[in-house]
Amino acid sequence: MKSGIKSLNTRWGKRDDMIVRTTAPFNSEPVPSVLAAGEITPVDAFYARNHGLFPDIPAAQWQLTVRGMVDTPLTLTFDQLSSGFDHHTVVATLACAGNRRAELLRVRPIPGKEPWEHGAISTAEWCGARLADVLSAAGVHHRDGLHVEFLAPDVAEEARPVQSYGSSIPLDKAMSAEVLLAWQMNGKPLPRAHGGPVRVVVPGYVGTRSVKWVTTVVVRDSPSRNYFQALDYRILPPEADPETVAEGEGISLSALPLNCDILAPTDGDHIPAGAHTIRGWAMAGDGLGIGRVDVSFDGGHTWRQAELHPPSSKWAWTLWSVTVDVAPGPLSITARAWDDTGMTQPESPASLWNPRGYGNNAYARVQLHVK
Amino acid sequence: MKSGIKSLNTRWGKRDDMIVRTTAPFNSEPVPSVLAAGEITPVDAFYARNHGLFPDIPAAQWQLTVRGMVDTPLTLTFDQLSSGFDHHTVVATLACAGNRRAELLRVRPIPGKEPWEHGAISTAEWCGARLADVLSAAGVHHRDGLHVEFLAPDVAEEARPVQSYGSSIPLDKAMSAEVLLAWQMNGKPLPRAHGGPVRVVVPGYVGTRSVKWVTTVVVRDSPSRNYFQALDYRILPPEADPETVAEGEGISLSALPLNCDILAPTDGDHIPAGAHTIRGWAMAGDGLGIGRVDVSFDGGHTWRQAELHPPSSKWAWTLWSVTVDVAPGPLSITARAWDDTGMTQPESPASLWNPRGYGNNAYARVQLHVK
Repeated sequence: MKSGIKSLNTRWGKRDDMIVRTTAPFNSEPVPSVLAAGEITPVDAFYARNHGLFPDIPAAQWQLTVRGMVDTPLTLTFDQLSSGFDHHTVVATLACAGNRRAELLRVRPIPGKEPWEHGAISTAEWCGARLADVLSAAGVHHRDGLHVEFLAPDVAEEARPVQSYGSSIPLDKAMSAEVLLAWQMNGKPLPRAHGGPVRVVVPGYVGTRSVKWVTTVVVRDSPSRNYFQALDYRILPPEADPETVAEGEGISLSALPLNCDILAPTDGDHIPAGAHTIRGWAMAGDGLGIGRVDVSFDGGHTWRQAELHPPSSKWAWTLWSVTVDVAPGPLSITARAWDDTGMTQPESPASLWNPRGYGNNAYARVQLHVK
Repeated sequence: MKSGIKSLNTRWGKRDDMIVRTTAPFNSEPVPSVLAAGEITPVDAFYARNHGLFPDIPAAQWQLTVRGMVDTPLTLTFDQLSSGFDHHTVVATLACAGNRRAELLRVRPIPGKEPWEHGAISTAEWCGARLADVLSAAGVHHRDGLHVEFLAPDVAEEARPVQSYGSSIPLDKAMSAEVLLAWQMNGKPLPRAHGGPVRVVVPGYVGTRSVKWVTTVVVRDSPSRNYFQALDYRILPPEADPETVAEGEGISLSALPLNCDILAPTDGDHIPAGAHTIRGWAMAGDGLGIGRVDVSFDGGHTWRQAELHPPSSKWAWTLWSVTVDVAPGPLSITARAWDDTGMTQPESPASLWNPRGYGNNAYARVQLHVK
């Protein structure tokens, strides 16, 4: 169990062993062994990454406005959304852009950013209406270069200036079958702590674009100018100062990069000698599949292929495992994934360090001790 | 100029300074400085990668058969193809899966494979009919998991068993607007040495799928079983023996991985001290853009951002340049590209070595000397 601020009345129904990074806003990640238990993460273990306090919007009062570059601006109630459009279910993994930031912090400090370890990633079965169907009902314009912005009422004190949360994705992605306006998570009404009554789910994209408590959708001819699109959630060059960079500088995060991690056993574990099954996840870039996962017990000198557990959807992580006999002493485990085009990951977090600590997709490494 | 077998009567109109790797079949790459001259590679400098002797098919005798999972099998003459379908032009970079193999050879030998250096990549303006339009005319079936196979008459003596060349791509890619049955290259009739009268051009995919002298298109429910799809052009794990692997083992190459290279100056050059402009290319995975290119003169300890020259198509490489003052002594230059999702390349060819030497997309490195 890692250290963290615990406050029982603000745990939002999460498991007792969750690592709580901040309580207001609520930011929390599960311990790796809990994530390793299965493809679908239970709601009480699903990571929480937030920039503001949770809005409290009863479904009966929730409304969604669709406006901008559409023929017919719409306002939909929860009943209209959930009864007027076909329902679709997608198993999708969401991951925070800062997942695995702790490894970047060991390269060089990143002031003011949470030291997410292995757990700012989780998988759920989401159910809702296709965003494409709602946009089509509004007569969305079809032109190259359009973007779809999502606005929500949660206020982010950290933004410059203070503002409510927003983000955008390209129209092409917004019109894809996997992008949902979701009101169910793992078969139950979407909890307030995960964006209920209705959130956006953008499978394959960095979690920040899956806007919770969404109330407004705007079709625009440029990306959102919200702080979290135009200034934050960007890969800046190492020498940039995040306090002074101009709007639009750096690489805006969108599709998740090819990545993997080792979930069990984990850093610092003491395990008995003998046979152990090492478990982890791998995920390829937007819509690609995993071709191979290699695991090394000698720092990457030689590799063994892990067994891949076929995901239930192309938008879900691929869990993998490999069983190995381990002898007493220190044990280093390294893992790397290859996508189904033959691309693999960068070796070292040192080469990926960036001023906001996003997008660490270096080889996964854990150090443990065999008794 | 690198060493190579020269035979004037089998140079197929290529520049005198091309590096000829084999004459029959004809395999040849331009020197890097020629590639650096512009976005479009002149035909006389365009790399040539072949597995058999060139078929000699006059346009008037060429025919294309479209069969398999289609409602109406078709046979089209050159006139029917070029007058019966809309013409489309795409600027696209083709790259051999073995480009930059020379760096892998320095890690560990790869017997029987050509030591391609920096030049097994080139860019042309291709003109032809969309494959999608031809498939639609044949009433192609639309189902998940279908593949489109291309067959050609050039016989590959290296295949097991000896067979003519073939390959396939997923139907989704085959139906994309950028995939052509091309009969023009840089505004002129497609030369015999580049697949004339008609070849497939699959932008964003490894060059081996852009089948030259194509005469047959088959819609199938599985990938081609041709040697070059089922056995070769796969990333095998390091310990695999390419002589004994089973059909379908390894990761089949499709979309090109994120990659870059330094073209001028190049390995072993002696250059005077003072200001120099370093030039190279970068290319992102299938349809993505380049977000940033970093260049280092201290082995990757510090980086400078290169200037990006906007490509004329999303299927063309992005040329980049950076001007630097260099002092006398040995000079090492390293480059790496980031795509527009924030993904970058693996650092070292050592971690990418594979038994057939494909897909080297490690950081680009050249060593030269400043006088």
